[in-house]
This record gives sequence, structure tokens and C-alpha cells, in this order.
Amino acid sequence: MQTAARIEEALEQAVALARGPGAPPLLASALHYAVFPAGHRIRPQLCLAVANACGDPDRIASDATAVAIELLHCASLVHDDLPCFDDAGLRRGKASVHVEYGEALAVLAGDALIVHAFATLGGAARRNPAQMAALIGIVAQSVGSPHGIVAGQAWECEVAVPLSDYQRAKTGALFVAATMGGAAAAGHDPEPWRALGEKLGEAYQVADDLRDVLCDAEELGKPIGQDAIRLRPNAAAELGVDGAKARLEGLVKAAVASVPDCPGALELRQLIEAQTRLFFPKQLARAAA
Amino acid sequence: MQTAARIEEALEQAVALARGPGAPPLLASALHYAVFPAGHRIRPQLCLAVANACGDPDRIASDATAVAIELLHCASLVHDDLPCFDDAGLRRGKASVHVEYGEALAVLAGDALIVHAFATLGGAARRNPAQMAALIGIVAQSVGSPHGIVAGQAWECEVAVPLSDYQRAKTGALFVAATMGGAAAAGHDPEPWRALGEKLGEAYQVADDLRDVLCDAEELGKPIGQDAIRLRPNAAAELGVDGAKARLEGLVKAAVASVPDCPGALELRQLIEAQTRLFFPKQLARAAA
Repeated sequence: MQTAARIEEALEQAVALARGPGAPPLLASALHYAVFPAGHRIRPQLCLAVANACGDPDRIASDATAVAIELLHCASLVHDDLPCFDDAGLRRGKASVHVEYGEALAVLAGDALIVHAFATLGGAARRNPAQMAALIGIVAQSVGSPHGIVAGQAWECEVAVPLSDYQRAKTGALFVAATMGGAAAAGHDPEPWRALGEKLGEAYQVADDLRDVLCDAEELGKPIGQDAIRLRPNAAAELGVDGAKARLEGLVKAAVASVPDCPGALELRQLIEAQTRLFFPKQLARAAA
Repeated sequence: MQTAARIEEALEQAVALARGPGAPPLLASALHYAVFPAGHRIRPQLCLAVANACGDPDRIASDATAVAIELLHCASLVHDDLPCFDDAGLRRGKASVHVEYGEALAVLAGDALIVHAFATLGGAARRNPAQMAALIGIVAQSVGSPHGIVAGQAWECEVAVPLSDYQRAKTGALFVAATMGGAAAAGHDPEPWRALGEKLGEAYQVADDLRDVLCDAEELGKPIGQDAIRLRPNAAAELGVDGAKARLEGLVKAAVASVPDCPGALELRQLIEAQTRLFFPKQLARAAA
């Protein structure tokens, strides 16, 4: 099965459990709405690519890890879009969850997705519990406090923000979970895979900053120019568009160079080169093609 | 160590990890504020009482379970108090988290507490991962969708609410996690402990409904008469005060009778008799004393 189809099937199965018999109908509907249709699924793609490069001997473990990471990413989008944060009405080209279902269900859908991410890991743990304990640690660290995406979002509530802490937590953490989690799910030592996640997370952030400046809202599927409006740090504003492009290219090179030795290292490096173009703004991707 | 002190110490240690070096200061502050000072800690008390009755051979497992359940309870209070739900300004006799820290940090503190509950279970899993996989399942089920407290809260967003589903999910689920989790943490089969959690959860709900009708706001530490204002089901309104009192007494008796055979069954039954008086409204507790 193609990786993209494998991810969608695993996500459908996981979300179906949370929408099981007896679920409140609106919550069940909101849960599906928050996860489908697919975004780029960059994080679970990365997780499975790393697992695959490491031999991927246990697809139940790698699927559960990829699913948990994507559910947590979707939860963070639902909560970040709330009126008390970004107050974003548009997400992935459709109304954001709180616009479609109301704030209460958006809060609850996010909560339920967080819980269900860990339930998914716990469910897969029945086969190889020792490995899953490590995976729960990796995933929880990437999403909680002090260094996960929740902490990253909380930095926006502070007056003084250490920029690197903010970006590492808000964007980088789930990329690190994807690379370390993919390796751990395949039975490899996760620590050597941290750098790859960090570099790709930072590359993604720079690309996102460039998109916020360069793209139109239709391409982006959400409003543009938000960083300037919200006085948020933006690499393109800080380094200039050319400087940010150079930084992006450098990060992708560093990411490729950081891939540890493993059975599928060569293919993984090629895949990263190709896949990172996906999250470049279109006009950059064309120029780089 | 007394159980109450043991719970506070375990909670302090767990929350300290989430507030560790590098945490955004306001989030770190809000996390402590949301968990301390202690409420009655009824759920972790129940969890440890059951673990104790089962011999409690592994205090790391039972502490982690009690902590996870209380962190999830605190998270649910923080999110339930938000303006889009109960819009409650007062909780445990002080300003609720969103009043003190703003809505954004209240959403994030709740999220971080949910993640940290599972991180706590995952951390303890390193000693006995097989057992912890079961515990993660029990705890996740009690808090997620379709049957946990998040689903219970989501029933309030529906037009037609099956009353038993609503109350079982909203209040009962974490009591079931406490009894089943306490047993599983002590290496016992959790399933026979489900009924005890269900009966005590329902008893607590009836007591809470009575308090909402009978108490003053000072005793309750939060506004009274909220069920009538919000048109929420209330046993005292439905059965009358005397009917609700009789129902409460019956549920406590049924709970005591449901305690499975175990080394400390006798003491546990006595403890339940005594402890349930704690969550009776004061004037009932006096009458029953």
C-alpha cells in the first residue's frame, strides 16, 4: 500500500474508535471534520519514512505512532484556531472547527484527539509494551510542557519570548517526535534521529514564514500576512525573502546530512530532498525544480 | 505516609516536571494554580484505597495512576469553567484559571494537564510496561470519546441527551478509572471493580445535585443553582430532596456491597462508608453522623 493511503486508513480506523457507538453525534462529527480530508500529513509521512528506513518490522507500532502524531497535530490546529488564539475562520480551505461546530465542541474535539492519540499508542502497546513506553515518552514530550507544542503556543502569551525556544517547541517538537518515534517504533535507538526532526521542523517553519509573506490565501488555505498582524516572529521578515530562502535550502541540506546510518538511509535522503519541496511555497518549488 | 500527603507529594512531583526548566512562566504558573491547593482529591483517594485493598505491591504504578486521574480531573475543571461552557468565575473558592490567566492559557493548561497525565503513566511504564499498557487503556477510556468525560461534556452540546449516557460519562467515568485503575495498578483484574466506580460516581453526582440545591456558595466554593439556570438534569429537582437523599443512601449501600473479594475488602467497605460522607452536603452529613 502507498504510504499516503496507509496513513489515511490508519487514521480512519483510529478516528472511528473515538466516534464509536454511544458517542455524542456532534462531537463524533467534529472529530472526523478535524482530521479529514487530509492535509499534507507531513509528520506521519516523515514518521513512516524513518520507520521504513529502519526496516519497519512492526507496522502496528509505526502506524500507531504516525497516527498519534497526526491526531496531536490536528488537535493543536483546532485549539490554535479558537477565538482566544488566532481566531482563524479558515483551515485547510474550509471553515475551522469552532466556526462549523461552535467553540465548546472545538475545545472538546481537541481534547478528545489528544486523549485518543495516547489511547492509540496504549492500544498498540499490548503487543510490545516496553517499546510503547518509550514511544509514549517521546510523543508526550513533543506535545506537553515544558518543551512541546502546548508550551510553544503558551510562549505567545508571554511578553518576552526566547525565539528559539518558541519555534523549537511550537513547530519543531512534533517533527522530532516523528523522526525519533519512527526510529523507536522500528526498534532503533531514537536519539540519533533527533537532529533530523529538528532541522526539518525549522525548515518547515521558515517555509511557513515565507508562505505567509509570498502566497495568496487560496494557495495557503488560510489567511495570509498573519505574522505581521500578530507581531509574531517571521524568518522572511527578519532575514528578507532571499535570506530566508537561503536559510531554507541550508536547513534541508543539513537535514539530509544528519540522517543516521540505517538500511534505507540512501532512499530516505532522496525522499527528504523530494518531499521537502512539497512544503516549499509554490514559486520556490518551481524555481528549485 | 498518610494517603492525603502521599497524593499531594506525587502530584507536586508530577506537576514540577511539567513546569521544568524552559517552560513558559505563565503556563508553568497556571499549571500549579489548576492543581493546587487540594480539593477533596476524591478520585485519587479512591484509586489508592482500592490499590491498598488489593495489597498495593507497586507504589510507583498506583501513584502514577492516582496522579493521572487527578490531573485529568483538574484539566476537565479548567476547560469546563471556560466562557464557552459554564463561564464559571469561581472554583475551589478562588478565581477560575481563565479568570486568573486568560482564556488562552486556560485552554493550554488543560491541554498540558491531559498530556502530562499520560506522560506520567508512560514514565511509570518503564518498570512494568505490560501493566501500564492496560492502565493507559483504562484511563484513556474514562476521559476520551465515546464514553469518557470529554464525551460527557459534549452531550451538553446536543439537543437530545440520553441522561444515563451523559451522567455516566461526565461524572462516572473517572470514578470507574479510579477503581479499575487502582486494582490494575496492584496487579488485580480490573473488571470486577467497575461496579464500585459506577455506583460511587452516580452517588457523587446525586450528592453534587443536592449540593447545588441545598448549599450556599461559600460552602460549595462555586456558584449555586447552576443546574436550574442551565436547564441541566438534577436528581434533586427530579426526585425531590427526600427522594434524592434516599437514592444517595441506596447508591452508597450498593457501592459497599459491590466491593470484590480482596485482602483489604473489610477495611475498604468501612472506608467507603466513612469517606462518602465527605462529599455529602454538610447538612446531610450531620444528619447521617
